[in-house]
Amino acid sequence: MAVNPPRLDPPLPVPGFNIGTASCGVKSPELKGKRQDLALIMADVDCHAAGVFTQNRFRAACVDMGQATIKTNSENIRCIVANSGNANAGVGEMERVWSQQLIEAGAEAANVDADNVLSASTGVIGTPFPIERIREGMQQAIDSLNPGNWEMAANAIRTTDTFAKWTSRKIGDYTITGIAKGSGMIHPNMATMLAFIVTDAPLTHAQLQPMLKRVADRSFNCVSIDGDTSTNDTLYLLSSGIGLGHTPLTHTDEFEAALTEVCVELAQMIVRDGEGVSKFVTIEVTGAASEADARTVGRAIAVSPLVKTAFAGSDANWGRILSAIGNAGVEIDRNRIALAANDVRMLENGNLLSDYRDEDGMAVFAQDEFTLHVDLGLGGASATVWTGDLTHEYIRINAEYRT
Amino acid sequence: MAVNPPRLDPPLPVPGFNIGTASCGVKSPELKGKRQDLALIMADVDCHAAGVFTQNRFRAACVDMGQATIKTNSENIRCIVANSGNANAGVGEMERVWSQQLIEAGAEAANVDADNVLSASTGVIGTPFPIERIREGMQQAIDSLNPGNWEMAANAIRTTDTFAKWTSRKIGDYTITGIAKGSGMIHPNMATMLAFIVTDAPLTHAQLQPMLKRVADRSFNCVSIDGDTSTNDTLYLLSSGIGLGHTPLTHTDEFEAALTEVCVELAQMIVRDGEGVSKFVTIEVTGAASEADARTVGRAIAVSPLVKTAFAGSDANWGRILSAIGNAGVEIDRNRIALAANDVRMLENGNLLSDYRDEDGMAVFAQDEFTLHVDLGLGGASATVWTGDLTHEYIRINAEYRT
Repeated sequence: MAVNPPRLDPPLPVPGFNIGTASCGVKSPELKGKRQDLALIMADVDCHAAGVFTQNRFRAACVDMGQATIKTNSENIRCIVANSGNANAGVGEMERVWSQQLIEAGAEAANVDADNVLSASTGVIGTPFPIERIREGMQQAIDSLNPGNWEMAANAIRTTDTFAKWTSRKIGDYTITGIAKGSGMIHPNMATMLAFIVTDAPLTHAQLQPMLKRVADRSFNCVSIDGDTSTNDTLYLLSSGIGLGHTPLTHTDEFEAALTEVCVELAQMIVRDGEGVSKFVTIEVTGAASEADARTVGRAIAVSPLVKTAFAGSDANWGRILSAIGNAGVEIDRNRIALAANDVRMLENGNLLSDYRDEDGMAVFAQDEFTLHVDLGLGGASATVWTGDLTHEYIRINAEYRT
Repeated sequence: MAVNPPRLDPPLPVPGFNIGTASCGVKSPELKGKRQDLALIMADVDCHAAGVFTQNRFRAACVDMGQATIKTNSENIRCIVANSGNANAGVGEMERVWSQQLIEAGAEAANVDADNVLSASTGVIGTPFPIERIREGMQQAIDSLNPGNWEMAANAIRTTDTFAKWTSRKIGDYTITGIAKGSGMIHPNMATMLAFIVTDAPLTHAQLQPMLKRVADRSFNCVSIDGDTSTNDTLYLLSSGIGLGHTPLTHTDEFEAALTEVCVELAQMIVRDGEGVSKFVTIEVTGAASEADARTVGRAIAVSPLVKTAFAGSDANWGRILSAIGNAGVEIDRNRIALAANDVRMLENGNLLSDYRDEDGMAVFAQDEFTLHVDLGLGGASATVWTGDLTHEYIRINAEYRT
């Protein structure tokens, strides 16, 4: 069902990290042994860590606890323990207890303190968390620990994802490898997005944390809306620094560019695998007064149900696109807007071009991948947002998800 | 397809107003003579007027011009001319020209100046406005003018609405009659909502304008999001004052209460007739710090695709409801939230009740009308919001609307 899922090269091992998985039957005991649902990312050394977290006010306890750990213990992280099948969210007071127990299980596996462990959970909201089944499965995860196990881990964090998501990049002698899960509608809310990225490049928490925020704003936050996110969305970045001594990392800019590539690639995979998505649409907004404005306009288009159903119907309905831009809440001059779909120019200076032919627009919208170009004519800033269409399949999945 | 559309009593004539309609073939010439698409609301005397308008920055010229007229000429309105079939929106510079021509056609019909006329248009966005066909049909509308023609007018402003929407109230000797059209998803955007309300009660613009804003906030704005609305949403209220002399209107509070009933009833009809809606859900938010907070939380639940698909799937998925509340952007104390569906209590103090049974919640969600009660436990303010579910039918309508 995914839109052109990429053929992925094998994920690269990263010096200092071993990966293990287990099948615990988190969602239901009958699934035990049938699909992987527990992942361990284990570091040989204390890692510097950074995190970006959901803004949802009902965010799960594991998110609160992860953010607190990153704040107090950002240079001594040894383990990420993550499960799919149950988000441990919306379950009241027990949430914090169960999250602590998951962290302690990870700490025991890593033979470190709970303070050195981050956790993440994804899956059904509002169902008691089966910590016992996870504890029982932990030894299996420990037994499977090895540096090449990234694909298994990417599979273990899947929920309704139809394919496992990972990617790697080299910067000189250093490696970045990341895995992610998404699915759900992503736009506009509540599909849990998890991404775990590790590197052996020697970067400190003080370097990594602001960098990760910038990169998230240009990748994961361009497929998911700030402040309108799931209870559990979490992005972790660990640096083992184990590569230190090979070659110095002279330019953090280069590292940031590679990290951005990793995150954009993972974010795009999440859109391609969005629930019921049959088209992958890139929205490029240029001519904005600020990058934030450009992103806001891009998102407003990307989340509009009427625009997304027009994508689904291969209807080059630029009226709905203008209306969505008008609802973005940023200053717009209607007489400066230009709009094109791929190389088909539709509007300039707010007016339909006399040589625009509807069938040309329709031909672009009928493709399973295309780019909308929106120029606001107001300034020099730009942003790119990725989205999918809104289809019958989305309704089917979400009206039947829990029942 | 509508959810329990009410059996409406005949609309009451209002002293001082005559109503006419015509079939112009606005959407396409083949429709001429087949369905009404032009409505005239003609006053015998100069009326005091009030208006509430869409906040969309690409709002159509007729909205800008109507707001300007209300501002400069609020005590001398003689005519509302409205059409369906074409929104005269998203068509660039010609928009204002065509709107002025529509207004002038109404002014000619009413034998007054253009300054005394308000206009509204609804229908397809981004298609040239067929002003000639409307001019040709105008005489038919004039010929049909009579005080009892409200139902015809309610029909003439329909687009994808499956039933005509009107209601009346008496306050002493005075009458309020209103018509509306909606359809579309309403939540969260872009179905044009039009409502025209007239009364013979002697109220001035200075009284009517703030009253109409308050009433809109508790009715139409509880089914449609501020700042996230169509390009053409318009609510007009005219007072002929012709009833003056029968009995004085001693309490404007009573009038406001009756006007609120009219607007809430019309707003609820719009939800019942939302595109693809199969369930009518009332969301009552209590215990909020302010009425605005309560409304914001209610809307956040009402617009969440995941909540709306859970409604469609009869899935009492309170986890999704909590997550939507967490995304509302208002201060929330997760440990104070209470949630119930009809009389089935689900959560208190943020925790699932031990005696809550999922099948009880499911039984409520399976009904075609039910009420969600959300108590925030923070204060004494409340608000009520109405919404529908998100179904396959919505996708079908909107992926195929223009093509």
